[in-house]
Amino acid sequence: MPRKKDPSPLTYASSGVSIEEGDRFARRIQGHMRRTFGQRVIVNEGGFAGLFRLDYNEALFKRNYKDPVLVACTDGVGTKIRLAIDMNVWDTIGIDLVAMNVNDLVVQGAEPLLFLDYIACHKVVPEQLEQIVKGISEACRECDTALLGGETAEMSSMYAPGDIDLAGFALGVVELSRATDPERVEPGDVILGLESDGVHSNGYSLVHKVIERAGVGLDENVAALDPDRTVGECFLTPTRLYAPSVVRVLRHYKVKKVVTGMAHITGGGLQDNLARALREGIDAKVRLDAWETPRAFDWIQQEGNVDIEEMRHVFNMGIGFCMIVRPSFASSITDQLTRAGERVHTIGEVVKSKGAGGSVLNG
Amino acid sequence: MPRKKDPSPLTYASSGVSIEEGDRFARRIQGHMRRTFGQRVIVNEGGFAGLFRLDYNEALFKRNYKDPVLVACTDGVGTKIRLAIDMNVWDTIGIDLVAMNVNDLVVQGAEPLLFLDYIACHKVVPEQLEQIVKGISEACRECDTALLGGETAEMSSMYAPGDIDLAGFALGVVELSRATDPERVEPGDVILGLESDGVHSNGYSLVHKVIERAGVGLDENVAALDPDRTVGECFLTPTRLYAPSVVRVLRHYKVKKVVTGMAHITGGGLQDNLARALREGIDAKVRLDAWETPRAFDWIQQEGNVDIEEMRHVFNMGIGFCMIVRPSFASSITDQLTRAGERVHTIGEVVKSKGAGGSVLNG
Repeated sequence: MPRKKDPSPLTYASSGVSIEEGDRFARRIQGHMRRTFGQRVIVNEGGFAGLFRLDYNEALFKRNYKDPVLVACTDGVGTKIRLAIDMNVWDTIGIDLVAMNVNDLVVQGAEPLLFLDYIACHKVVPEQLEQIVKGISEACRECDTALLGGETAEMSSMYAPGDIDLAGFALGVVELSRATDPERVEPGDVILGLESDGVHSNGYSLVHKVIERAGVGLDENVAALDPDRTVGECFLTPTRLYAPSVVRVLRHYKVKKVVTGMAHITGGGLQDNLARALREGIDAKVRLDAWETPRAFDWIQQEGNVDIEEMRHVFNMGIGFCMIVRPSFASSITDQLTRAGERVHTIGEVVKSKGAGGSVLNG
Repeated sequence: MPRKKDPSPLTYASSGVSIEEGDRFARRIQGHMRRTFGQRVIVNEGGFAGLFRLDYNEALFKRNYKDPVLVACTDGVGTKIRLAIDMNVWDTIGIDLVAMNVNDLVVQGAEPLLFLDYIACHKVVPEQLEQIVKGISEACRECDTALLGGETAEMSSMYAPGDIDLAGFALGVVELSRATDPERVEPGDVILGLESDGVHSNGYSLVHKVIERAGVGLDENVAALDPDRTVGECFLTPTRLYAPSVVRVLRHYKVKKVVTGMAHITGGGLQDNLARALREGIDAKVRLDAWETPRAFDWIQQEGNVDIEEMRHVFNMGIGFCMIVRPSFASSITDQLTRAGERVHTIGEVVKSKGAGGSVLNG
C-alpha cells in the first residue's frame, strides 16, 4: 500500500539552491575577474574551464622559459573567516586568501600566473560574495595574477546560516634552474626577516578562544592591543602580500642566484617554516631580539596565558616572510625590499651545524 | 582594575586544532600522492608548493606544445558529501571530486596534468581523510594526473562534528590550435551522448529532500529505485570519469579536428550545458528518446513530484557527457569510445538555427 504522499512539487529552489541568485552573483563578479586578465587570458565565456596562454613563442611576453616548471598550491584562510562573518566585513578576507597562496608560490622562486577560488556558503548573498571576490581580484592585480575562475557552492545543509568557507588555488611558473633549492643555502648566508602585518591567517582558532576569555567585544577598543583600532579590525587586518616585492628582487638578479632560500611564516611559526629551507648539515641562527614583537602577540599571550614556545609555534610573531641571501648581496636586497615597501630586519645567519642540521636555533 | 583571569594556559590544541593528527594524516597520504606523480613531478619534500615539469625540450615527454594554453578549473562535490557523511563511506567521494574537475578540463580539449584538493573538517580523523585521498589518488591515476598537493583545514567552529567539505582544483594543458572553439561547430555535426553512472554530483540538495519525503532509509532497498543496491549506495555511486576515454579520442586525431565541441552535463542539465558549446546561428536538436532515462531519475521525479522540466534542468537524466563530432567520423569515434568502456548514443545533431541560435531543441 503506497504511503500517503505530500503532493506539493519539490523544486531545486525549495531544497535551498537558488540558481537565479547564483547567476546574479556570477554576473556581478565578471568585472572584477576581467580586471585581472591582462593579455594572457583567453576569454572563454560559457566555457567549462579558464584558459591561460603560456606563449613561449611570442614576443608579446618577454619572460620566456626554457624549462618551465609549474608550481601549484592550495590554501584557505582557516577560522579567520569567522571574524569576517561576525563583523560582517567582507572586503579584505579575499586578500588573505590570495596572500596565503601566492606567498607560498614565491617561496619556490615562482612568479604567480593564475588563481581560482572556491566559496562555499549557506546561502548566496551576491552583495556579500562580491565583496569577497573584489578583495581577491585586488590582491591578484597586485601580484600580476589572473583570477581565472572560481566555484560558488550553496550548501544550506552543510553551512549554518550566515556561514561561509573559502579556499584558493594558485599556479605559478619558474625556470627549472632558478627554482628554490635547499642545496644552495650555505653557511654565512644572511637571513632577512620581512615584517608581518599582524596575525595574518594562522592560529585563529586560538585567537577566538583568547578573545572569548578576555571577554572583549570585536567592536571594543583595547589599549593594550591597539589603541587606534577595534579588536575586530586589529585581527581582521589582511595577510601581507609579499609576492610583488619578492618577485621584483628575484627578477632583478636574472643570472646570479643570490637568494638561496625563502620561507613563508605560517602555521608552525618561524621555527618550523624556516627549517623547511635548510638542508642537512646546516642550521639557521636567529636573534629573536632583532625585531620587536607586535603588541597583538603580547596581548594574546597574556590574555590566554599562552606559553611563549606555543606562541612561537602558532604565530608569526612579527616576521611573516624570510629570505636567505648571499652575504655580499644582503644590503642591496634589503634596500630593494625597503623601496618596495617592506620593513626588513637582518634576523640571523646560516651556520654549519654541530648536529644533524636543519634546525632553527636561537642565537 | 583588571578582570579576574582564568589562569589555565590556552594552547592551540585546546582551541580545537591538533597539529599531531594533521601531521599523522599528512604522512599517511604520502604514498597515495606519490603513486600519481609519474616522471613530471619534481619531489619537493617540505616545500611550500608542488612542482610539475612541462619540459618542452626533453625527449622524455613525447607530447610537446608549441603554444601551450593552461586550462584550470575548480569544483566541489556539493551536498553529495552529506551522503558520504551519513553513510560513513569515504572511499568514493574523492573520485567524484576529481571527476567533476577533470571532466570540465577535457571539454576544453585539454589533457589533465595536475590536481590539488582542499579538505575542511570539524576534526581530522586520519583514517577517514585517508580514504578520501585514496579515492582522489585512484581517480588521478586513471586520468594520468598528478595529485600534486592539498590542504587540510581543521575548523571546529565552522563545521559541525562529523562534517567535511571538499574542493578540488585541476590544471591541464592544450595546444592553442586544438583548444575547443564554438566557432568550429557546424550544422550537420553529430551529437554523441555518453551515458552517466547515475546522478553524479549535481542536484543533491534536491535528492536529500526527496529521500526525506519518501521516508526511506539510506540502508533500505527500494525496488523502484534499484533492486540490487541500497538507497545510499545508489546515490553515492561516483561520478563517471570521462577524461581517459575523451583524451584518448582527442589524441587519436592529432591533426584532424573532428571533435568540434563538448559538454560535461552538470547543474543546468543537458539543455544548459550543451548550449555552452553552441555559437550564434546554430542550434542542437536532441532526441530525448534516444536513450533510456535511468530509473533513479524516475524515482526522484515521482517521489518528489518534481516537474519534468525541473528534472532536466537539475539532473543529467542519463547522459553525463556530450561530444559533437563531424558526421563522417561519428561512427569511428563511437567505436573508440565504446572500446574505452563508454556507453554511447547518437542523441542528435547540429542544425542551422531559425532564430538567434545557441539553443538545445527537442527534435
